[in-house]
Amino acid sequence: MSTVFAGMAASLDGYIASAGGELDWLNDAMVRGEDYGFSATMQRTGAYVMGADTYRETARFSGSGGDSTPTYVVTHARSLEGQPSNVQRYSGDLRNLVTELREETDKDICVFGGADLVTQFIDLNLLDELTVSVVPVLLGGGVHFFGRLGEWKRLTLAECKQFEKSGIVLLTYRLNGSEGR
Amino acid sequence: MSTVFAGMAASLDGYIASAGGELDWLNDAMVRGEDYGFSATMQRTGAYVMGADTYRETARFSGSGGDSTPTYVVTHARSLEGQPSNVQRYSGDLRNLVTELREETDKDICVFGGADLVTQFIDLNLLDELTVSVVPVLLGGGVHFFGRLGEWKRLTLAECKQFEKSGIVLLTYRLNGSEGR
Repeated sequence: MSTVFAGMAASLDGYIASAGGELDWLNDAMVRGEDYGFSATMQRTGAYVMGADTYRETARFSGSGGDSTPTYVVTHARSLEGQPSNVQRYSGDLRNLVTELREETDKDICVFGGADLVTQFIDLNLLDELTVSVVPVLLGGGVHFFGRLGEWKRLTLAECKQFEKSGIVLLTYRLNGSEGR
Repeated sequence: MSTVFAGMAASLDGYIASAGGELDWLNDAMVRGEDYGFSATMQRTGAYVMGADTYRETARFSGSGGDSTPTYVVTHARSLEGQPSNVQRYSGDLRNLVTELREETDKDICVFGGADLVTQFIDLNLLDELTVSVVPVLLGGGVHFFGRLGEWKRLTLAECKQFEKSGIVLLTYRLNGSEGR
C-alpha cells in the first residue's frame, strides 16, 4: 500500500520561511554534490497533494507541465490559473482522497505542503512518514511549519542522515505505528 | 577559554514544554541505558547561569545544595528563596558576566535556561555551543524554546548522535565561528 509522506526543510528554530520570505538561508546552506533526496522523492511519488498557495508557488517556479505526475490541489476555488491536464482540484474529505489515490497508484503519495495541509494530514492520522531537513541556521522569526494538533503524536525515528559539508541533518520519522510500508 | 553552552530537549515541532506543563512526553521517550550526556555536562560545567523562573523550578526539584557548582541567577529580584551559598544573583550586563566567569573558571559555562535567557545569549553572540535533543514526538502546542532574534545566526554542525532505542537525536552546533575551544 502507498505510503503517505511529507518532507520539508526547516531552520533549527523550526521556520520554513523567513519573515521576509527570503530563501538565501536555505539555498546558501545546500552544498553541490550532497544528495538531499529530491530525485528519489520524485521517483517514488505517484501523486502529489498540495494546498492552493503551494500550487501557485510551485507553478510560478516550475511552470505548468514540468512534471506529469497526477497532482491534487486541495481548494474550494472553482478554477486554478493555468491548470495543466495532470492537475485536479479537490474539495472533499482528505480521508476519501487518500483512499482514492491508493486505488489509483501503487507508488507513494507526497503531501507537498503547505504547513496547514500537512498539519491536517497529521491530525487525521493520514500521514505515514515525515522528513525534516534541519538546516544549520537560526532565523529567529518567520513561518512555522508545524501547526496546532488535537493531540500528541508519538513518532518512530526511521533514519537520521547527516551531511558533512553542509551540516544539514535529515530526520525521517514514521507515524501511526507505520513501519514504512 | 571556557565554552559557553546551552542544551535542551525539544519535541520535533520545537516545544520544550507542553501546553499543560506535563513532562510525560519527555520522560516516556527516554530509555534506560542510553547516555544522553547529563553526567558529562555536569562534569564540564564550572558555572551555571539561569533565569529566575528556571532557578525556582530547579530548586523545587533538586532542593538547595544538591550541587555546589557556582550558579548565577539573572534577576532584578532583591533576594531568592532558600538561596544556598553557591548561588548568586546577577542583574548586570551579560557580556560582563561571561567575562567575569571566564576569569573565575577554566571549565565551561552552562546557560541552563529559560528560553528567554538563552535567546539573549544567542542575540548577544555570547553562546558558543548549542545542543538540541530532538524527542520523537509532536506536541502540537506549548512553550517554544527559541525566541525572536535580531538577525539570522548561521551554525556549524559539530555532532549528530542518534539513540537507537528511544529515537532521540542530539544535534550539537557551534556558533560564532567557534571551533569548540
